[in-house]
Amino acid sequence: MLGLMQDYPLLVHTILDHAARNFGDREIVTRAVEGGIRRTTYAGLHSRARRVAKALVLEGIEPGERVATMAWNTDRHMETWYGIMGMGGVCHTVNPRLFPEQVIYILNHAEDKILFIDTTFLPLVEAIKDQLPLLQKIIVLTDTANMSDQSIANMIAYEDWLSEVDDEYQWHEMDENSAAAMCYTSGTTGDPKGVLYSHRSNVLHAMAVNQADALCLKSSDSLMPVVPMFHANAWALTYAGPAVGAKLVMPGAMMDGESIYELLDTEQVTVTAAVPTIWSMLLAHLEATGSMLPTLDRVLIGGSACPPSMMDKFEDYYDVRVIHAWGMTEMSPLGTMCTPTYATEKLSPEQQRNIRLKQGRSPYLVEMKIMDDDNNELPRDGKSFGRLLVKGPSISKAYFKLDKQILDDEGWFDTGDVATIDQFGFMQITDRAKDVIKSGGEWISSIDIENVAVGYSGVIEAAVIGLPHPKWEERPLLIIVAEPSRAVSKEEILSHLEGKIAKWWMPDDVVFVDQIPHTATGKISKKDLREQFKNFRFES
Amino acid sequence: MLGLMQDYPLLVHTILDHAARNFGDREIVTRAVEGGIRRTTYAGLHSRARRVAKALVLEGIEPGERVATMAWNTDRHMETWYGIMGMGGVCHTVNPRLFPEQVIYILNHAEDKILFIDTTFLPLVEAIKDQLPLLQKIIVLTDTANMSDQSIANMIAYEDWLSEVDDEYQWHEMDENSAAAMCYTSGTTGDPKGVLYSHRSNVLHAMAVNQADALCLKSSDSLMPVVPMFHANAWALTYAGPAVGAKLVMPGAMMDGESIYELLDTEQVTVTAAVPTIWSMLLAHLEATGSMLPTLDRVLIGGSACPPSMMDKFEDYYDVRVIHAWGMTEMSPLGTMCTPTYATEKLSPEQQRNIRLKQGRSPYLVEMKIMDDDNNELPRDGKSFGRLLVKGPSISKAYFKLDKQILDDEGWFDTGDVATIDQFGFMQITDRAKDVIKSGGEWISSIDIENVAVGYSGVIEAAVIGLPHPKWEERPLLIIVAEPSRAVSKEEILSHLEGKIAKWWMPDDVVFVDQIPHTATGKISKKDLREQFKNFRFES
Repeated sequence: MLGLMQDYPLLVHTILDHAARNFGDREIVTRAVEGGIRRTTYAGLHSRARRVAKALVLEGIEPGERVATMAWNTDRHMETWYGIMGMGGVCHTVNPRLFPEQVIYILNHAEDKILFIDTTFLPLVEAIKDQLPLLQKIIVLTDTANMSDQSIANMIAYEDWLSEVDDEYQWHEMDENSAAAMCYTSGTTGDPKGVLYSHRSNVLHAMAVNQADALCLKSSDSLMPVVPMFHANAWALTYAGPAVGAKLVMPGAMMDGESIYELLDTEQVTVTAAVPTIWSMLLAHLEATGSMLPTLDRVLIGGSACPPSMMDKFEDYYDVRVIHAWGMTEMSPLGTMCTPTYATEKLSPEQQRNIRLKQGRSPYLVEMKIMDDDNNELPRDGKSFGRLLVKGPSISKAYFKLDKQILDDEGWFDTGDVATIDQFGFMQITDRAKDVIKSGGEWISSIDIENVAVGYSGVIEAAVIGLPHPKWEERPLLIIVAEPSRAVSKEEILSHLEGKIAKWWMPDDVVFVDQIPHTATGKISKKDLREQFKNFRFES
Repeated sequence: MLGLMQDYPLLVHTILDHAARNFGDREIVTRAVEGGIRRTTYAGLHSRARRVAKALVLEGIEPGERVATMAWNTDRHMETWYGIMGMGGVCHTVNPRLFPEQVIYILNHAEDKILFIDTTFLPLVEAIKDQLPLLQKIIVLTDTANMSDQSIANMIAYEDWLSEVDDEYQWHEMDENSAAAMCYTSGTTGDPKGVLYSHRSNVLHAMAVNQADALCLKSSDSLMPVVPMFHANAWALTYAGPAVGAKLVMPGAMMDGESIYELLDTEQVTVTAAVPTIWSMLLAHLEATGSMLPTLDRVLIGGSACPPSMMDKFEDYYDVRVIHAWGMTEMSPLGTMCTPTYATEKLSPEQQRNIRLKQGRSPYLVEMKIMDDDNNELPRDGKSFGRLLVKGPSISKAYFKLDKQILDDEGWFDTGDVATIDQFGFMQITDRAKDVIKSGGEWISSIDIENVAVGYSGVIEAAVIGLPHPKWEERPLLIIVAEPSRAVSKEEILSHLEGKIAKWWMPDDVVFVDQIPHTATGKISKKDLREQFKNFRFES
């Protein structure tokens, strides 16, 4: 027997309806890509998003078709998001930082006919346009006056394109499971894979983010999503913000410390979010200028682990609360946020700090567990580590046009991470599954050893990889980049590690190199390291 | 095209799974109906709820069948809720305060075969048992030692019944739109009507309640739902609490000021919720004993309007934030909560207080609008008032076994209330639709006039009804109960009203009575007043 409650689908554009109706005059402030600050409101954005939707219908875009964006965080980019999704299209955010061949693959694979783009990225598209046979129109997110003199066929200024229509438009009616947005995730191997969000998954995700024990976003907050809208929905902040009527501050193309600080200051930002690199630049600027952060209350840090020194600086010196978070494109992206619980609040300050450096705990509607190689669930003891599996309504079950099963028989998605979960439910990533070292049937965390090694004075960078071993299957090799001025020795390093890691984790050898290879996104490329050291043999 | 996110249904019992997994040792404290305090945890409740589910399956209860409860707020009552819903049954909470004939109608109409009941209410069922032909088993929420000596056939102590099974049970797999819970709403006329909640509607509702700008519930909160579980899901707090791992404090059968205070104090309650009557008793106790409320942070007040003096006392003297709220059984029940927005926080203290006496603003996933008699939407100006219509995924579209259309063509539900909505989105009830007075094509709010009238010294109670008028259709009659010792005159009253209400709202006459009739739930019975004064004629 079914319940008798209203058939009210969860649709992304109803978030903007709610914002326009209840917080119509709430500001959206943008550092324009053309320079200067531009201001609009939720009512204004709501009107222009409907114009985008209407104009896309006139272009012949059908519900379910993908429409691409390659743009900074701006009001205009947000208008295109809600406009595309509201007319039934799929908003496909393209990461301009990918290699050109990846961008070509992605635009063709998604079959994008229309691309909304910031002037910044026109040279990139100019260079590859001949390899994009399906692309019919390029809409440049600016006005005639600021239009690029780049000569690309079928290019039009957004404001000109938009001026052809009014906002008399009713959102397309659709099932809440309809595709709403797409984001490709690029691993180190193989082609990028398209994650296809639904209206339902995005709405549920926004509601999870806005729980008091997650981001705790309120109408009174001034929210600056620095994390780009082309990274997993800007961590869903462009849904979460309007859902509560928070002020939005969009940083546009300028991510340097000074520009970010200026907006934090003038727009009285209370909440912001980005990867650690951004915050390094901000902290350097603050230090250089002696500036403080009086209105900023909390900063969400994800993408990669927050260095302890960064957390300390934010909290102890600037009185800004750090919320460590973890997620994946396949998770919309929220997996965990590191906010205290009734139990951790009772711990000592030192214990609390250790917990707050973990990736965090999962909100309701994200389930997680860790598994050993034999598919047994491991205990939540903070020590056992295993493959991290997740489940929930905002987590992928398949990739776009890829006929490959990605869930196990019970519906769990393997994150590819290796992690611990402690008794309080806090998860900590210990490794990528493919980097973990299997020694004598047990696992060694490469990241744990690296973290200890870089703590030794004179060590600039450290990487640990597993190499084949006749007896133990694999054993760890520690690779070090040392300061040229310091003659760091193998013995010094090993004696530094002693007592800080398990005895049987001790690297079988230490080698010194001039540099360690990195991926396009700046992470250590263990794949390249394994290739480089494939002929290395441990002395026995 | 559909998105590619996991098919993960929103099911009520996954809330308890989440609580048990992440907050297993978080306490649930109950003032036992047998006396004394009983303590369990989410892990304990999770185990026992699965036993309830398993035992119900053994009883032959099929998914979709209704199972009744008539019980106080206790851990055992919560176990039955999650157990019934988790095995696919429909948890039918019966309000023991209804008239016996209503209880008979409800139990028969719902076709309940099993009733979980507190000893308190056995006499009620004893008296009507012969008129409940479908009822097969009565499970008394106690143990053998405390079992009633009431002799009712097929009666068993809950603990005996539960001892027959272990907790090896997998929740029933079902569609999220499956019926989960039922609550009858009794109007002043006609039979009670069954509101049928779904798993989906309850889960979405719990997530709305836990938004930072709604109840803002956190794991660190200690939550006491005083509002009974037989009133519209205890305002959903028994879902919202476990969803975030809050401590739960269940007051059992004792609602007097001293008992409520004792739990607030010993269990360090931070959030609580009930109707104004409960808080009057608490405030009287505090005043008599000089006690304070050091841990209590906020109190949710709904059911009927919070008197301004009560709000002032809580806030100014006890430093407890009052959150005024409004809802209906048909709304799961949340319609609005009165929490500040970025805009209202900037108003003067006086203006803020006026807004906080309003019923509040709707969260995302509740839409509301006010309409005039010609079905035109009225402006959000805080002055225009009209019929309040609502829409959302946790709002009724029909009543159980009642073949009657209750939504309009666009899917809106008429609340039966008349209200204003101001520019900030805050709604204020001005009348019940059937009590509003229609004069010369315009509406007069009976409640507004009553509120001004009771402000006059010597007036104990005031009621305004509309009576037929040859020229104006209807005109207001003001009915007063005055203090016997004060000779309040009609002229005094009218001169008190002058300037405080619109000129054309002035009552055409004032009559004095010894008492005003009330309904079973303590509200002024305007239906009876209209009957009583049906032959009254205004002097012209």
